[in-house]
Amino acid sequence: MIVDARVEAWVRLQVAGVAPRALVTLLRAFGDARGVLAASPAQRRRHVPTDVAAQLDMAPDSGRLEAALAWLREPGHEVMAWDDPGYPRVLLEIADPPPVFYFQGRRDLLTAPGFAIVGSRNATPQGCEDAEAFAAALSAAGFTIVSGLAQGIDAAAHRGGLRHAGSSIAVTGTGPDRVYPARNRDLAHELVARGLVISEFGPGTPPLKQNFPRRNRLVSGLSRGVLVVEATLDSGSLITARLAAEQGREVFALPGSIHSPFSKGGHRLIRDGAKLVETAQDILEELAVAAPAQRMVASAPTEMADPDARAVVGALGHDPTDVDTLVARTGLTAPAVVAALTALELERVVASLPGGRWQRTSRPE
Amino acid sequence: MIVDARVEAWVRLQVAGVAPRALVTLLRAFGDARGVLAASPAQRRRHVPTDVAAQLDMAPDSGRLEAALAWLREPGHEVMAWDDPGYPRVLLEIADPPPVFYFQGRRDLLTAPGFAIVGSRNATPQGCEDAEAFAAALSAAGFTIVSGLAQGIDAAAHRGGLRHAGSSIAVTGTGPDRVYPARNRDLAHELVARGLVISEFGPGTPPLKQNFPRRNRLVSGLSRGVLVVEATLDSGSLITARLAAEQGREVFALPGSIHSPFSKGGHRLIRDGAKLVETAQDILEELAVAAPAQRMVASAPTEMADPDARAVVGALGHDPTDVDTLVARTGLTAPAVVAALTALELERVVASLPGGRWQRTSRPE
Repeated sequence: MIVDARVEAWVRLQVAGVAPRALVTLLRAFGDARGVLAASPAQRRRHVPTDVAAQLDMAPDSGRLEAALAWLREPGHEVMAWDDPGYPRVLLEIADPPPVFYFQGRRDLLTAPGFAIVGSRNATPQGCEDAEAFAAALSAAGFTIVSGLAQGIDAAAHRGGLRHAGSSIAVTGTGPDRVYPARNRDLAHELVARGLVISEFGPGTPPLKQNFPRRNRLVSGLSRGVLVVEATLDSGSLITARLAAEQGREVFALPGSIHSPFSKGGHRLIRDGAKLVETAQDILEELAVAAPAQRMVASAPTEMADPDARAVVGALGHDPTDVDTLVARTGLTAPAVVAALTALELERVVASLPGGRWQRTSRPE
Repeated sequence: MIVDARVEAWVRLQVAGVAPRALVTLLRAFGDARGVLAASPAQRRRHVPTDVAAQLDMAPDSGRLEAALAWLREPGHEVMAWDDPGYPRVLLEIADPPPVFYFQGRRDLLTAPGFAIVGSRNATPQGCEDAEAFAAALSAAGFTIVSGLAQGIDAAAHRGGLRHAGSSIAVTGTGPDRVYPARNRDLAHELVARGLVISEFGPGTPPLKQNFPRRNRLVSGLSRGVLVVEATLDSGSLITARLAAEQGREVFALPGSIHSPFSKGGHRLIRDGAKLVETAQDILEELAVAAPAQRMVASAPTEMADPDARAVVGALGHDPTDVDTLVARTGLTAPAVVAALTALELERVVASLPGGRWQRTSRPE
């Protein structure tokens, strides 16, 4: 892609390694990546803790920055930032959307309805067959199959998704220039060619243990529901299922023999409220029922031109909140908050409640 | 057993073939079996529909009556009637307790905590192994394993139950002198020797299709919970599970492969709210939590000497009811109903509510 000043600013922020939530706070305060970088260290410290602000005060790691910019200059290598109109709206619903991520492949899949299929890396052949069959059926029905490019269930899910129109998205736990595990190299190339591969980690990031659970929140975040196929009790897919439930996504699990360790994860989820499914049709029926509610997404702050309005909506959440709290959360003055709320109410983005409190509305996608 | 006038009267009622609910109505009106038989046809017709009353007006089928009395005169052959102190109290909780049933074996098991294990007749070897293992573990924990003496899961459950102290009860769908299927003859003899075999059908009753679902309400009725192990979607064990839920019993199911027809019944139950279990311990934990509530049983009308009081309690149920309704339901005069209620209130069997209404209490077993 063409690396302009805007793109470079976003990459600088990513390379600085500021945690998503802190970065979002800074973006709300200063509008966009260039605004955050242009602010003085003292201004930034008014919004985030000193140690976080210090990450931006230092000169960027020039090696990592150059590696990222070089990667992006290759054809088909792209970056998506929080303020891009193509940024997936479903990610704005989750607690900590990545302010910026790298990708290769079909960017249109980011706004298609997603469905995650995850499970154990060392799953049984039957489990992999089931994952691929469910993925193929859901892809044929129009869902984009989201998974983590791990071996076992993840790889089978991607293969099934690629077989039909819904295609597939891999969310990796490494930088966009790495494939882990290496045996999935061919699959990764197919995904780049006919699907999509995304990563919130910078080019050069090796497979690091702590990055995989963090990646899982995007697998579920990009999806309307998550199906767990063969998971042991220590499988990372149970983390994905838990994050999915927290994000308000439907959780589904395949049952299996009480004598198989690969069924225990799914059984635990079912006992905790996940839906037991036997066929892809079971999932489609459940999502069809749930669709009207799931299509209601939070109003996207990125569409608002006014930075104050964006900050207020970002600070509002879906719980009733009063103006003082919004002042504290945004750093804006009370009159600025009230002016923003009034404008937002006219746009039906927020609603006023009794007792001087305000709430975000939801509106159809 | 010794066949005295009381026993003979009960057998006559059983042989007449009056449906349990109608028979209970007559027993409430006339006190006991001899009272029902001594009443005039006109008196009986005041309480039950003409066609039901006609069953008692006719001379009894002497062949069936003689067969039943002859069977009962053999050592170890017994009958249990609604007014017997040994009648299982848990059956009084269900909608249509059998007024009389035949049995052979340990009558003490009728008042032990029961747990039903049921499933398909043509289950897989693994399913039968699972049923036997769960039954053995629950029997070792003190539960009497209740099932239907069918082949497959039922037979395996009985075998497992017999292995430990809880032992096992078979509720048959034939007369007490028949074993169906014949291949379970040895198992039936073992159950008579070390467990219990009961039937509400008279001696000589062959295996009739319509009697088996009816039998299932007693399998669940005698149990605190029901576990379904391997059931196809057309398995009678799903009827047992449904009856169990209606009777307020806990329903448990084993999951299995989505590719096995023998898992589909259990999966449907789990989707409908049954608890997925992987081990006997799962069941014991669930029942331990549920135990305080489950130990509360309805006050048994059979323990009351006064026929008016018995009729009033029988007519009362657990919903608040006024005296006029009780007069209508019992056929007693209003002063008789009020006198009975007052006595029952002193015994804490009923409680008075605001608005002149009355309700049955529950008391610990």
